[in-house]
Amino acid sequence: MSAPAHSLQLSSTGRTRVRRLPERARSERDDLYAVLDAGKVCHLGVIIDGSPVVLPTGYGRRGDTLYLHGSSANRAIRAAAGQDVCVTVTLLDGLVCARSVFHHSMNYRSAVVFATARMVTDEAERLEGLHAVTEQLIPGRWAAARPPTKKELAKTSVLAVPLAEASVKVRNGPPADDEEDLGLPVWAGVVPAELTFGPPQADRLVDPAMAVPDHIRALTGPR
Amino acid sequence: MSAPAHSLQLSSTGRTRVRRLPERARSERDDLYAVLDAGKVCHLGVIIDGSPVVLPTGYGRRGDTLYLHGSSANRAIRAAAGQDVCVTVTLLDGLVCARSVFHHSMNYRSAVVFATARMVTDEAERLEGLHAVTEQLIPGRWAAARPPTKKELAKTSVLAVPLAEASVKVRNGPPADDEEDLGLPVWAGVVPAELTFGPPQADRLVDPAMAVPDHIRALTGPR
Repeated sequence: MSAPAHSLQLSSTGRTRVRRLPERARSERDDLYAVLDAGKVCHLGVIIDGSPVVLPTGYGRRGDTLYLHGSSANRAIRAAAGQDVCVTVTLLDGLVCARSVFHHSMNYRSAVVFATARMVTDEAERLEGLHAVTEQLIPGRWAAARPPTKKELAKTSVLAVPLAEASVKVRNGPPADDEEDLGLPVWAGVVPAELTFGPPQADRLVDPAMAVPDHIRALTGPR
Repeated sequence: MSAPAHSLQLSSTGRTRVRRLPERARSERDDLYAVLDAGKVCHLGVIIDGSPVVLPTGYGRRGDTLYLHGSSANRAIRAAAGQDVCVTVTLLDGLVCARSVFHHSMNYRSAVVFATARMVTDEAERLEGLHAVTEQLIPGRWAAARPPTKKELAKTSVLAVPLAEASVKVRNGPPADDEEDLGLPVWAGVVPAELTFGPPQADRLVDPAMAVPDHIRALTGPR
């Protein structure tokens, strides 16, 4: 039953075993960037009133900082400021069907980031953070849409999460059945999984003569 | 820029506003079940050494209990036993492209469950939990694969998370632009997103004459 993921060189099963980025080889940092850059949604973990709270939210990366944003009224974002947080990005790549129930698993890539979050107050950095979040959602979108006004910015909180401690886990490949099970008459293999985007649906007030822009068309099809 | 999701009747922005299931109408409980039953991966939040840790893992539901499992050596599963946890399931349904940067958002469904987790020790319930996890991953799979041995069961921890407190959030529909932006020459709309499964890839040791079973074929295509 799904042992923990097979560990590649970056693997870590808990905070005690995470590695600090400055000590990492460039290739390992690139693996972390690759997972973070491929996602759309992260899960922010923060402690509120002594209990863990895990909420999904958009994010973006700029260098060695993740930016998250939310309404100024967003309780989790506000609670995270100055506190230890955990930000996790998970990409499901496949369902791993073994001959035994025990060896069923998933192929996936995940990045788990531990940091003290910082509420961004500098206006230039706040804009950079929002730019990163928007571009992560839809690359090329920032330049195409109306920029935020001061009033809109005042309603938005931007949280910075430094990529100081992180671990990356990857499981890929076929099932890892026990040798004595290989002859069982049970189909085994992998069912690939991915997040896909369908044909863009224009808002009803969009002029039907307006072409779907390239940065929207680029999303369609498998990622 | 993605205000928080538009709230349907179940919405809750934080633990203070979650509702207790016994007080809910049946339709609300069904909404919770629908989100949980549609996912493959949950994010488990637990406090370890005073800091939040968020890890992706498989899960399954049986009635009003979520079951999670992991290796007996899994630190997060062990740390969760008897402790407050948060289990979140998020389904991304679309990218919402507004005319203004500010109103960009995502369509999604999410369920956030707060509970005190319980390590399952009863052998019959442990098997039920593993059955639920396996069937969530691939419906119909449990009966097709070799059942777990006592030795394998001894290596597996099963965690029960009661659906006592939970909130469901759903955002769907078109962008919610400000009226004064509707005339801007900016394409706006929704790009639908979904997790899709590709053609099954048989393990190299599977007899080429063996047909792909129906429960595997049923996964292929959009969910």
